[in-house]
Amino acid sequence: MPRTSVTPVTITKVNEKQIITIKDFLAAEEPLEIRLGYGPAEHRQQKSISVTMRTPGNDFELAIGFLFTEGIIENIAQVASIKHCNGLHENVVRVELIEGLELDMGKLERNFYTTSSCGVCGKSSIDAVKTVCRLPENIQDDAVFSSEVIYRLPGLLRQNQSVFNSTGGLHGCALFNPEGNLMLAREDVGRHNALDKLIGATLQQSLFPLNKYLLLLSGRASFELIQKAYMAGIKIVAAVGAPSSLAVQMAADAGITLIGFLRGEKFNIYCGEQRISLKGYQKEVTAYH
Amino acid sequence: MPRTSVTPVTITKVNEKQIITIKDFLAAEEPLEIRLGYGPAEHRQQKSISVTMRTPGNDFELAIGFLFTEGIIENIAQVASIKHCNGLHENVVRVELIEGLELDMGKLERNFYTTSSCGVCGKSSIDAVKTVCRLPENIQDDAVFSSEVIYRLPGLLRQNQSVFNSTGGLHGCALFNPEGNLMLAREDVGRHNALDKLIGATLQQSLFPLNKYLLLLSGRASFELIQKAYMAGIKIVAAVGAPSSLAVQMAADAGITLIGFLRGEKFNIYCGEQRISLKGYQKEVTAYH
Repeated sequence: MPRTSVTPVTITKVNEKQIITIKDFLAAEEPLEIRLGYGPAEHRQQKSISVTMRTPGNDFELAIGFLFTEGIIENIAQVASIKHCNGLHENVVRVELIEGLELDMGKLERNFYTTSSCGVCGKSSIDAVKTVCRLPENIQDDAVFSSEVIYRLPGLLRQNQSVFNSTGGLHGCALFNPEGNLMLAREDVGRHNALDKLIGATLQQSLFPLNKYLLLLSGRASFELIQKAYMAGIKIVAAVGAPSSLAVQMAADAGITLIGFLRGEKFNIYCGEQRISLKGYQKEVTAYH
Repeated sequence: MPRTSVTPVTITKVNEKQIITIKDFLAAEEPLEIRLGYGPAEHRQQKSISVTMRTPGNDFELAIGFLFTEGIIENIAQVASIKHCNGLHENVVRVELIEGLELDMGKLERNFYTTSSCGVCGKSSIDAVKTVCRLPENIQDDAVFSSEVIYRLPGLLRQNQSVFNSTGGLHGCALFNPEGNLMLAREDVGRHNALDKLIGATLQQSLFPLNKYLLLLSGRASFELIQKAYMAGIKIVAAVGAPSSLAVQMAADAGITLIGFLRGEKFNIYCGEQRISLKGYQKEVTAYH
């Protein structure tokens, strides 16, 4: 747990008929600015592309994961260097891209919620994501997870969430292999930041391709999180909370398996059932209630 | 509950050793674009200022609340009209501002995470919010809430969350008076949207000033939510979840009472204890553990 990820505080605890003044810990939240350096050596340019409220720690992973899931970089080899600005300021990260990299600056202005001539809608948002994604389509799609393994995952993530365990205030996400081993876990006050940190770490650690792993989310699954998973080539996403309508639509459209409400020995499958092994289960085909 | 706030879906429910195919409901998520019309009649201009992923329903409140909490409008009288674009497209809202309103278009480019010459930091973010807020400072600050009333609030909000109750997938927020009566409640897949809808509704319904009410948040309290509460002149915020470090810092700096982990007959007070009445409580002044 990085030193700066939690902040000590003195609070008044009210409990039935008692008031106690105690020391406690808060999940740290601070802005992070990402600055991009790009262009040929003779005309090097700099641009501030994002300010996000995040929990300090794993800032380089966050910056790289953000650039990748926004479609600005395709791989880690396009990053020449990454450092805290002036080597000092902890809330500004400067990413230098390699020379000769063609950069579509329009991408920095737009986002995946995109405006089309007919106005924005869920479908145009999904189409925009699919246009930007540049992962090879022919990756072998072989990972299958058993329900017994899936039931265990939230407990394993929770054990790994050091900041959550001391503050109760952080989103977490993790990648697991089909045997249920935790490969990587990251935390943040923002769920999109936690996932960008995780994906940035896989790029730095050369864990790609990610189609062999399951992505677990500690909370709800929104469109934005499924979009990031898709950009990284993740094929199975399981959320402890509920998915939104557009998350399910994006997952179904992109061929991603989506699980929600994973709690105890229960979960819902919204799409992509073929990647879940349910041997020995009794199947009631249509019990509408 | 608006017709479009939930989406029906057929899912596979896995439960111990059973698999059931059932119909279920998802919280709807769709992009909403906010377009602003401004300037003198002879040079009317239009600008797309935001696209947010939201749950359809209460879109006009969301647009007005967003413009207000971002500091773009000061009151509802500055809005000449608001409608869905072309009267048809449900995901685009067009807000026409009155003529003669001076608009700082720079504000639309910046945000409260602001870049100062020394780089971004929590303090500069708080300072930026305080610069933009234009509420009168001399509002009488008289609301006090008893712990007995506060304990009851999450249950009252939950009863009112119609979309959450059918989907399990929405953030909620509500305003209560000191007697514990629910004045207004709103829901959304995005917690910032739920609060913008709530604040937009108070503007439309002329509920201002809001210093007499308590704002309840169904989840965690981040900087962004405290910033919006501050812009609306709210003096007491209670969250069911954990606050972040910057949420506590912003609340303390702005003189807002902040409660977190409000569950059952327990809560934590992070700052502004003077607005909570705790008669008959035993006080242990310093029990550090």
